[in-house]
Amino acid sequence: MQPATLSILGVGLLGGSIGLALRAISSPCKIMGYGHRSSTLRLALEVGAIDQGYEDLASAVRESELIILCTPVGVFSQILGHIAPHLKSGAIVADVGSTKQTVVAQAARLLPKHVHFVGSHPMAGSEKRGVEFARADLFQGALCLTTPTPATDAKALEAVESFWQSIGMRIKRLTPQQHDQWVGEISHLPHAVAAALIEMQRDDALALAGKGFLDATRIAGGDGALWRDIFLDNRDNLRSGIARLKSALDRLDAMLAPEHADALRDWLNASSLRREKLLQQKLKELNPD
Amino acid sequence: MQPATLSILGVGLLGGSIGLALRAISSPCKIMGYGHRSSTLRLALEVGAIDQGYEDLASAVRESELIILCTPVGVFSQILGHIAPHLKSGAIVADVGSTKQTVVAQAARLLPKHVHFVGSHPMAGSEKRGVEFARADLFQGALCLTTPTPATDAKALEAVESFWQSIGMRIKRLTPQQHDQWVGEISHLPHAVAAALIEMQRDDALALAGKGFLDATRIAGGDGALWRDIFLDNRDNLRSGIARLKSALDRLDAMLAPEHADALRDWLNASSLRREKLLQQKLKELNPD
Repeated sequence: MQPATLSILGVGLLGGSIGLALRAISSPCKIMGYGHRSSTLRLALEVGAIDQGYEDLASAVRESELIILCTPVGVFSQILGHIAPHLKSGAIVADVGSTKQTVVAQAARLLPKHVHFVGSHPMAGSEKRGVEFARADLFQGALCLTTPTPATDAKALEAVESFWQSIGMRIKRLTPQQHDQWVGEISHLPHAVAAALIEMQRDDALALAGKGFLDATRIAGGDGALWRDIFLDNRDNLRSGIARLKSALDRLDAMLAPEHADALRDWLNASSLRREKLLQQKLKELNPD
Repeated sequence: MQPATLSILGVGLLGGSIGLALRAISSPCKIMGYGHRSSTLRLALEVGAIDQGYEDLASAVRESELIILCTPVGVFSQILGHIAPHLKSGAIVADVGSTKQTVVAQAARLLPKHVHFVGSHPMAGSEKRGVEFARADLFQGALCLTTPTPATDAKALEAVESFWQSIGMRIKRLTPQQHDQWVGEISHLPHAVAAALIEMQRDDALALAGKGFLDATRIAGGDGALWRDIFLDNRDNLRSGIARLKSALDRLDAMLAPEHADALRDWLNASSLRREKLLQQKLKELNPD
């Protein structure tokens, strides 16, 4: 689906990349961008990510068939409340948030009956922020998770999924609960661990860091306020992930003795092999031929 | 220093890359390679990493001025014992091991008085193994840690350091104890954590993994037996690193509440900023101009 009119609320890395991706497939869709800084809107216009910029939400959404929330998750409820009275009948609202239970519940509470909400999470991005890092191919080959509930309108769901597919994404449906649990484990926890690995280093040790350490901690390079919102929103899952990681580290600790050398080698090889299989699978998904 | 004759014991990724790096600077040094597989030696000869291959240690070291141990650390003592009677007077033995206290002690015990040992750890490599991945520029711009003791011969130390410098490395001297503590924290611990992060994932969550997770766990992609040896050798430091990381995760856990939102944001920003500073410093080291 290509909507005739699209509103991108928050024209940063993700929002800007949506606009550029649509331009790259020559979508005829009219793209309206909302941002609270005029300099960002100007830049988004310059790079061609949006057709028109708005500093007020009402004007940015009034005409739109599809509205995508691309701000940090911490301000979703505020934005949903602001746009609710200005959405036209039949409009579809979606989002790019890294957590889903809260936003799905907020949308059900805050949006009027004549508007459809579809939770979606395109798993693409980087530790960089801002429209200046936006790329037309950011979503290409990556996974987009959609989180319908029994209340989700089937046609709206299909429309949102086909929208993400049109800019190169693969779709996987999960419940909002499954989403937050699994994404908490595969994405939020590794971010938390990377930040902790940096925090605990002594300066003397840090001075010896090489490419391995920098790669292992790259995901912790993001914006603190943005990740605070995600962590707080998904804190129960993150907590249980931390507990399970600590158990895994305890299992390792128990193997750090010469008499457990074989078990230790097997444990290390199992992780190495599991990652290699994952890598091969991901490469196949990106290059199906 | 360019020795007239060099023996590389273990012609894998690191050993092979030493040979290729010497060729790249047109060193006139004669390079002898030891390996226990004739196919590896043949490949090392083919790519030009060595001038001559030996399947027995005695012949591989007999003529050499400089001998570098490039096998897994777990077989260092065995190799030192084997080569000890065959080394010529004044020969210098060095190594590329990721741990230093044990090998320094082993060398002091096993090598004859007329031979000098210098512990060294070029911090370069990858999760790949084998001479087929060897690269002439593997060491370029990277850090080499040397670990002299009061018993280390000053000229031998200088010779080994200038050898690593000749193939592009920067040198930093540490005691063997400091080395194992700090490298345990900045390298062995992140490897252990990456392996644990893979081990604990449920299949459903793992299926959602993206580039972030693959990058964060790349260091766990190595060979289990090789890392088992390193972990066992440095287990006290690794254990204390695990304990300190668990404390850092507990500090994070305690901040996962809305009333600690500011502290959580500041903690995340501090790690993000610390990594960014590190990255800028590393980029400057690699591109000094």
